[in-house]
Amino acid sequence: MPVFLDTSDSTFEQSFATLLSAKREDSPDVDAIVAEIIADVRTRGDQSLLELTAKFDRLSLPDTASLRITEAEIDAAIADVPAAEREALELAAARIRAYHEQQLPEDKSWTDAAGATLGWRWSAVSAAGLYVPGGLASYPSSVLMNAVPAKVAGVSRLAVTVPTPDGEINPLVLLACRISGVDEVYRVGGAQAIAALAYGTDTIAPVDKITGPGNAFVAAAKRRVFGKVGIDMIAGPSEILVIADADNNPDWIALDLLSQAEHDESAQSLLITDNAAFGQAVAEAVEHRLKTLQRGPIAGASWRDFGAVIVVRDLEEAAELSNRIAPEHLELCVADPTALSQKTIHAGAIFLGQFTPEAIGDYIGGPNHVLPTARSARFSSGLSVMDFLKRTTLSQMTPDALRAIGPAAATLATSERLEAHGLSVLARLDALNR
Amino acid sequence: MPVFLDTSDSTFEQSFATLLSAKREDSPDVDAIVAEIIADVRTRGDQSLLELTAKFDRLSLPDTASLRITEAEIDAAIADVPAAEREALELAAARIRAYHEQQLPEDKSWTDAAGATLGWRWSAVSAAGLYVPGGLASYPSSVLMNAVPAKVAGVSRLAVTVPTPDGEINPLVLLACRISGVDEVYRVGGAQAIAALAYGTDTIAPVDKITGPGNAFVAAAKRRVFGKVGIDMIAGPSEILVIADADNNPDWIALDLLSQAEHDESAQSLLITDNAAFGQAVAEAVEHRLKTLQRGPIAGASWRDFGAVIVVRDLEEAAELSNRIAPEHLELCVADPTALSQKTIHAGAIFLGQFTPEAIGDYIGGPNHVLPTARSARFSSGLSVMDFLKRTTLSQMTPDALRAIGPAAATLATSERLEAHGLSVLARLDALNR
Repeated sequence: MPVFLDTSDSTFEQSFATLLSAKREDSPDVDAIVAEIIADVRTRGDQSLLELTAKFDRLSLPDTASLRITEAEIDAAIADVPAAEREALELAAARIRAYHEQQLPEDKSWTDAAGATLGWRWSAVSAAGLYVPGGLASYPSSVLMNAVPAKVAGVSRLAVTVPTPDGEINPLVLLACRISGVDEVYRVGGAQAIAALAYGTDTIAPVDKITGPGNAFVAAAKRRVFGKVGIDMIAGPSEILVIADADNNPDWIALDLLSQAEHDESAQSLLITDNAAFGQAVAEAVEHRLKTLQRGPIAGASWRDFGAVIVVRDLEEAAELSNRIAPEHLELCVADPTALSQKTIHAGAIFLGQFTPEAIGDYIGGPNHVLPTARSARFSSGLSVMDFLKRTTLSQMTPDALRAIGPAAATLATSERLEAHGLSVLARLDALNR
Repeated sequence: MPVFLDTSDSTFEQSFATLLSAKREDSPDVDAIVAEIIADVRTRGDQSLLELTAKFDRLSLPDTASLRITEAEIDAAIADVPAAEREALELAAARIRAYHEQQLPEDKSWTDAAGATLGWRWSAVSAAGLYVPGGLASYPSSVLMNAVPAKVAGVSRLAVTVPTPDGEINPLVLLACRISGVDEVYRVGGAQAIAALAYGTDTIAPVDKITGPGNAFVAAAKRRVFGKVGIDMIAGPSEILVIADADNNPDWIALDLLSQAEHDESAQSLLITDNAAFGQAVAEAVEHRLKTLQRGPIAGASWRDFGAVIVVRDLEEAAELSNRIAPEHLELCVADPTALSQKTIHAGAIFLGQFTPEAIGDYIGGPNHVLPTARSARFSSGLSVMDFLKRTTLSQMTPDALRAIGPAAATLATSERLEAHGLSVLARLDALNR
C-alpha cells in the first residue's frame, strides 16, 4: 500500500515535503566510460561503431555499409505488421501531425515610429538525429512523438539510430520511421550512436540536434555533446497526478495510476481527492488490479515506494498542491475540469475529465508525450515543433531611424566603456549630418 | 593583420575549416571548487553567503539583512545618474519592451472531427533569477536584455544577484533594475549567488529559472544547478560576420568588426566581401582605428588571432559560407540586404544595410542581445519572452471521441506490452458500450 496523507494532519507539511523530495532515480555514474566511447568514435569513426556494436549488441556487421538499415530491409520488416497495428500507428501519426502543425509559429516584421524595421524569422534545424532505444523499451509511439514534430518543423534530414541487440528490431519501430518520414536509419546504439550523430563518421553525417530517450549511457553522452549540438531534455522517470472527486469509478482511476507505475519501479503515481473513502476505494482497486497485471511487480514496487493518496479539504487545496508538485501528467477527474485547470499552472500535460485517460495522450491524442519530469514543468515544456526550429532576429535602420535612436546607443556604449561600439554609430551619424 | 582567405585558392577549404574549428576559449576547470561552494551554500545558507562575499568580494556585511540592496539604497545610488544616461536607458528599455511584447505567444484550443478538444496554454515561470556580473563587465544593457523579457512574460518575482567588489556597484545597473521592474537585488556574486538562487537561503527565496552572463565560476555553477532550475544558454565569446560589397565606407565596417573584437581577446570578427581591394581597405581601416582605440590591445589581439577577411566570387558564395559559420551577429551591408538575408539561414541576429551597425542591436534596436555563439545558431535562438514561459498541453475527450480513437490507443499499448495503459482505455470503452 502507498502512503496516505491528509492535509488536516499536523504532520502533513513534513510528509508532503518528503514526498516531493524523494530521490527516485539513482543514475549510475558512467561518465568516464562514455567519455572514452565518444573519443574513440571521434578518432576511429565507423570502425569504432562496428567494434562497439559487436561488443554491446552482440552483432557482427560485415562492413560499414551494413550500419545502415536499407529501405529494402525496412520494406521486408514491415510487410508482416498486422493491419490493426499498422492502422493504429497511422491514425496516431496523423493525429500527432495535425496537432503539431498548429504549433508552427509565424514570422513577424513591422516598422516602428522611429522608422526601424524589426522582426524575426523562424527556420528549421537542417539535420536532426533521433535516438530510439532497443529491446523492450523500443517504443514505436516514441518514434512518432519525436520524428513527426521534426518533420512538421521542416527538418530536411532526420536520422534515426536504434540498437538491434542480437540483430533483433521491432518492426513497428521501422514502420513508425517510415510513416513519419525518417530519412535514414542506423543499427547503432548507446553512447557510440550519440557520438556518431554529434561528430559524424564516414557513414553517418553529423546532425545539429539530437532528441530521444535512452539509458544512462545515452543520457551521459547527450550531456557531453550538448553545445556541439542541441539536445532535448534528459527525461526522468514518469509521473502522474490524478485529482479526482468521489464521482468517479475507482477502477478507472486505479488503472490510470497503474499506467504510469507500470513503466518503471521509479515512476510516481499520486492521487489527490477531497473524499477519503474514495481514496481508499482507489487504493483497493489498485491492489486488486496488481494481482493480475502483467507488469504487476514493477507497478507494485512503484506504487508501494513512491505512490501516495492525499486527502484534501477542497479542490482549491488540490490545485495548490498540484502546483507544488508540478507533475509531468495531470488528470483532472472532477465536475468542472476546465475551471480547475485554470488553477493548475505548472504541469507538462493536462487531461480533462473522466473520459480522458492519460494513456490517450501517450499514443493518439495528438499532443506530445515527451514531457518535463521531476518538477521541471515549473520552467520547461514538452517536446514540440519549436524544438526543431530556431529564431533569427532582424533589424534594419533607415538614416532617419539611426538619427532618432543612434545617439542613445552611443551614450550607453560610452557609459559601458565600449568605445568602438559607440564610434560605429557616431561615424555614421557624422556622415549623415554633414 | 588577420588572415586573408580567398575562395578561389586551392587551399581555401582547409584554411576555412581551420578558422571554423579554432578553439577560442579555454575555460579553466573550476568545477570542483564550484561543487564545494554550492554544497556549502546548501548546508549553511546565508552564513556561507556572508563568508564567501567577504572572501571573494572583499566586502564584510554586518548581518544577513544587508545581503539585500534596499529600495532606499537604490534610490540613493541612482539619484546622481546624469539625465542623458537615464534617458538613454529608458529609451532602450521602452524599445526592448515593445519588441518583446510582440513575442508573447497565444494560447490555442480547438475541437477536431473526432470530438477531441485539444490545445495548449502558456504560463510564466513564477520566479526567475538574473545574474549580473560585477566590476568592468557589469553592463546595464545586459540587465535590460534579461529583465525586460522576464517581466513581459509575466514573471511575478524577479531577483537580481550582483557582486559588489569592495562594495562598489555601477549605479546604472541599479537604474536598469529599477526601470525594468526587478523585484529584489542582492549583493552576492559567483557560484554562491547561483547556489542561493537555485536552492534558496533564509534571505534569498529559491527561483525556478536562472539567466544572465558570468565568469567561469558562474557558468560552471549554472551547469550544476541545471535540472533543479532552468537556465539560459552558456554564452561563449562574441562573434560578428559582416558581408559587405565594395559600395561601403571601409571605416564603418572596420568599426563594426572592432565593436565585437573590443569585447574580448577571444572574440571573433569576420568580413566576407566580393571585392579584394575593399577587403584590404577595411583591414587598413582597422589598423588605423586600433592605434587610438581605448581597448585597442584587446581588440587588436582578437583581430590578429581570430579575425579574417574572406574574398568570395559572389554573394551566393558568401551566403553559403555564412551558413557554415552560423554567426551570432550577421551584418549585411550589400545593395539588397533583404534578398541576401533570405539565404543566410543560420544566424542569431541579422542587421540589414549599412545604417544598421551591430551596436544598435546591443543597446537600443529592440531585439535581444543575448544570442547563440560558437555555431549554435544552427540549432538555438537568442533569449526571448519564451525563455520565461512554459507550455502546458491540454486534451479532453468526450465519450464519442474516446469511442473513435480509444481502440487504436489500446492496440498500440498492447503492442508495447503496457497492459495498464490499454486497460485504462478499455475499461472506459466497456462501460460506454454496455
